[in-house]
Amino acid sequence: MVEQGADEMLAGPNDDDIAILVVGDPFGATTHSDLMLRAKEKGMGVEVIHNVSIMNAVGCCGLQLYSYGETVSICFFTDEWKPDSFYAKIRENRKRGLHTLCLLDIKVKEMTVEEMMKGKYGKFQPPRYMTVNQCIEQLMEIEEIRNEGVYDWDTVCVGLARVGQPTQTLKAGTMRELLNEDFGGPLHSFVIAGDCHFFRDR
Amino acid sequence: MVEQGADEMLAGPNDDDIAILVVGDPFGATTHSDLMLRAKEKGMGVEVIHNVSIMNAVGCCGLQLYSYGETVSICFFTDEWKPDSFYAKIRENRKRGLHTLCLLDIKVKEMTVEEMMKGKYGKFQPPRYMTVNQCIEQLMEIEEIRNEGVYDWDTVCVGLARVGQPTQTLKAGTMRELLNEDFGGPLHSFVIAGDCHFFRDR
Repeated sequence: MVEQGADEMLAGPNDDDIAILVVGDPFGATTHSDLMLRAKEKGMGVEVIHNVSIMNAVGCCGLQLYSYGETVSICFFTDEWKPDSFYAKIRENRKRGLHTLCLLDIKVKEMTVEEMMKGKYGKFQPPRYMTVNQCIEQLMEIEEIRNEGVYDWDTVCVGLARVGQPTQTLKAGTMRELLNEDFGGPLHSFVIAGDCHFFRDR
Repeated sequence: MVEQGADEMLAGPNDDDIAILVVGDPFGATTHSDLMLRAKEKGMGVEVIHNVSIMNAVGCCGLQLYSYGETVSICFFTDEWKPDSFYAKIRENRKRGLHTLCLLDIKVKEMTVEEMMKGKYGKFQPPRYMTVNQCIEQLMEIEEIRNEGVYDWDTVCVGLARVGQPTQTLKAGTMRELLNEDFGGPLHSFVIAGDCHFFRDR
């Protein structure tokens, strides 16, 4: 993990070339921006090679990239914690007819609160990747609570899985239609469509 | 040009593999979506390899990708035609504290109206690529006309040139500061910052 290994990577003197491979674009995560700034402070040369990101690869679902509004993150809800800042952002996007890309939560190397309190570091939960189905459930849970009519079961959406891989799967439909669709393994993403102008009858 | 060569590429029968290389992500342009749909209609297999796009590579300027609003296009103004739909979009983005990526106009293989009227096809104007400086001039021209205070000479912006190339140049500053900065050759892009939370004093 970059977070834990950064100090070691930045500890000089070091004549080695160090490569960091990331999923998506290097600047999609603040962690990498921070790492670059720290390396430059130490006088280390840094070369960035940009990469495809879901922020642009999502164009494959047919909704035009320049008609997306602010991107939102959907975090796994717990009984005590249901962060819903995405709701207001989706509302503002939809008011303006814009699509919303939802980035779905990933839990890797996470510890339970109990284990942390016991001080048992290094014992991790199994990895979890939010599915399109879980995303729809959580979106509708918040719509029921907030009840502002930002979206409903008939809102047109697109579920995406493993974009750019040979097994890539894209399915468009209403929230209701996609709720029980099987998208297969991770990673999943989700788009809530804004205003659409269909240029093909399909 | 893909637009002119599409019919030839799609004319069957053809056992050849055809590769189309594009700048940015293939789905950044409707032209490519259309080409893919037409190829699939003819039963041709299509494989898409996603690519870096300015829509995500712009992350290199340090402003977080998930804090961007709708992307806008800035077209070359003429004496008769000054399209300003970007103004309302920038206003809505800034109201919400979001950054705006401005895609700057490119004129390649363009003909003058006079040549077109004479029917002299094939005689093209020299290519033109909008600079950061021209972009700022046009933005301020529209602000003076519309006068809604969406941005002003003191608004913080970032000019970007040749992102991803070894000669990449990024400069942050106010509109006033960047107006006369030299960014070198094409392609240029421009970002109007929304709310910023500086996490380094630099």
